Amino acid sequence: MQPAHSVQKIKPSYIREILQAASAPGVISLAGGLPDASRFPIELMQTAIEQIPQTPSLFQYGASQGYQPLIEQLNSLLNVADDESTLICTGSQQAIDLLARTYLNPGDTIVMEAPSYLGAIQAFQLAQANIVSVPQTATGPDLNVLESCFKNEKVKFFYAVPDFHNPTGICWSKETRRAVAELCIHFNVTLIEDIPYRELRFNGNPLPLVSDFCPKQNFQLRSFSKIAAPSFRIGALTGPKAWIKPVIKVKQGADLHSSLPMQAVLLALLQHQGFASHLDTLKEAYRNRYQALTQCLGDFLSANGVYQEVEGGMFVWLQVPGCDTDLLAQRLLAKHVAVVPSSVFYHDAQVNTEALRLNFTHAPPNQLRQAIEVLGDEVQRLL
Amino acid sequence: MQPAHSVQKIKPSYIREILQAASAPGVISLAGGLPDASRFPIELMQTAIEQIPQTPSLFQYGASQGYQPLIEQLNSLLNVADDESTLICTGSQQAIDLLARTYLNPGDTIVMEAPSYLGAIQAFQLAQANIVSVPQTATGPDLNVLESCFKNEKVKFFYAVPDFHNPTGICWSKETRRAVAELCIHFNVTLIEDIPYRELRFNGNPLPLVSDFCPKQNFQLRSFSKIAAPSFRIGALTGPKAWIKPVIKVKQGADLHSSLPMQAVLLALLQHQGFASHLDTLKEAYRNRYQALTQCLGDFLSANGVYQEVEGGMFVWLQVPGCDTDLLAQRLLAKHVAVVPSSVFYHDAQVNTEALRLNFTHAPPNQLRQAIEVLGDEVQRLL
Repeated sequence: MQPAHSVQKIKPSYIREILQAASAPGVISLAGGLPDASRFPIELMQTAIEQIPQTPSLFQYGASQGYQPLIEQLNSLLNVADDESTLICTGSQQAIDLLARTYLNPGDTIVMEAPSYLGAIQAFQLAQANIVSVPQTATGPDLNVLESCFKNEKVKFFYAVPDFHNPTGICWSKETRRAVAELCIHFNVTLIEDIPYRELRFNGNPLPLVSDFCPKQNFQLRSFSKIAAPSFRIGALTGPKAWIKPVIKVKQGADLHSSLPMQAVLLALLQHQGFASHLDTLKEAYRNRYQALTQCLGDFLSANGVYQEVEGGMFVWLQVPGCDTDLLAQRLLAKHVAVVPSSVFYHDAQVNTEALRLNFTHAPPNQLRQAIEVLGDEVQRLL
Repeated sequence: MQPAHSVQKIKPSYIREILQAASAPGVISLAGGLPDASRFPIELMQTAIEQIPQTPSLFQYGASQGYQPLIEQLNSLLNVADDESTLICTGSQQAIDLLARTYLNPGDTIVMEAPSYLGAIQAFQLAQANIVSVPQTATGPDLNVLESCFKNEKVKFFYAVPDFHNPTGICWSKETRRAVAELCIHFNVTLIEDIPYRELRFNGNPLPLVSDFCPKQNFQLRSFSKIAAPSFRIGALTGPKAWIKPVIKVKQGADLHSSLPMQAVLLALLQHQGFASHLDTLKEAYRNRYQALTQCLGDFLSANGVYQEVEGGMFVWLQVPGCDTDLLAQRLLAKHVAVVPSSVFYHDAQVNTEALRLNFTHAPPNQLRQAIEVLGDEVQRLL
């Protein structure tokens, strides 16, 4: 039986394809966007988890929009306006997918940064959208190219990850944020602001959301995978009430609603008095991992690798000019080091940069060092 | 912003739309397919829930196909063949949606029973399938009409709920099962056998799956919402390995994977030595509720209502010839009784029968009696 045309076109996730190899014993993985497993705030959630059995209503069907007490908590935490609402999703991946399904007809144009998050590329490809790419600069998307895109065709959405971008780690400057929002307003393009890493700033100063500059025409996608636990599969979508409503209808058809016990546990975590200090500890740990990684890059790749400093998130984008990074990633996996080659992050197979995405939040510093030493050796062999 | 064409066509779920009204204090709901909240096997899951915090790997990202120990347990329980595999889904609703997205191009033909499960209609409408209906008889779909359907156009799937059908409660006879499977084989149509109520047989003898008669061309959809807890949102899809593989790719784009802690708790429940007797108790309780309901129907609707006996599941299909059951459902809700009118279960607004779906598993017997008394009064007033 042949899959549908839309499915034949999407590429599978490299990371999920190599997950088995990458998680084999003895393999050091810098591939996934995996949190440090030793730092899940399990203690802060323990009581809430243990108390699930005391609340029988948490076992019954729930509302498609989500668990009302969690929605209220998020509306308050995120200052959701009166004419906006929040939809709880099965991870923020589902939020991307639901937006694509709810609003995109085949052929509709969506602009994305290039490179960009593979899961978003997949969801937009499934919706058979016309994906247009804007190259990244050190401070965000190239504004001239973005303006041309918006001018030259009818663009429905601009999907972006402005905080510690996946895969490049770039954080947009304030000027870029304002300028992008103004372009969205001027050309009537709705911004999808995906901010899974926003809470993971370990250096520099917080910046406003891009959405703050175009408050009437944005969706925001929140992930709790990085600050709570990815396995729960709970994310949140906020946006104008009238625009969220049809998304809820599509969610009904997709999975009725997201797990209620997981929503209740997440609520308890967000309300826990220890949550703020958990975040502080997590950010400090990730700052240390980041420093360990960059130290190693200096030691083993200063001649052949180039990267831009990051102030948060989970990734460093290591450019290796003149290197076939697909081949490099293959060779590294044979040497028990998993990384992701840049080609994975472009929807257009013709476009590529010679780079690797390196995750620094999952492997401990001694393993990061081993991995980067192997990487340095293999790069020298390939160049 | 206008939703996509595909979304504008789907009808919202009546049940989810009236959920708020139906769950208001003082309202007796025979509307949803809700299990008896006092009979969730919470005690059998309590230890597993309390032990979640002891297993940090349950907090990390998991594989898209599902939690391996749960997959293995299901493969063994369900006698999944070597050339088949199991995909864990975010409820069996997601399994329907993923199959529709993976295999249906817009305009592809899918045959369904009429009436049929609304969530399936929604998912197939979202995929812009050409939905063709086959009327139900007392023993399953009308075989002559089914054969004509299969003969007259290229049909990709036949979606069916052979065990205690939603909404009619009908259980297909063995002869019908065999005949449908033979038609599927003859016309090369893949069967989607959705069996959420199969374990809820409280009278009569178990029957083979329809899939048993066409083992090479079926998908089976398992729900754990009726025998464990709907709030977990865990279901399972089994089918030929080669056919499941592209579905996993679509699941990656849909939500990466389903909640790991929920999968682990479900596994513990399935392995619990008390699970079999939980099922026995549950079935006995539902048999009692069913008897209570039919007793009341005899008392208050013998003159105006007709229904077919059921041997399991959650629903009775009450036909009220000559009655506008949409209006009846509205009037009943005003009197604090929630039921679902038959029009909801037809994808084609032109087709309808004058009937109500009555759930007997949620409300206790005294409330069932109150509700049916009100129903009897309102029917008399309308006729």
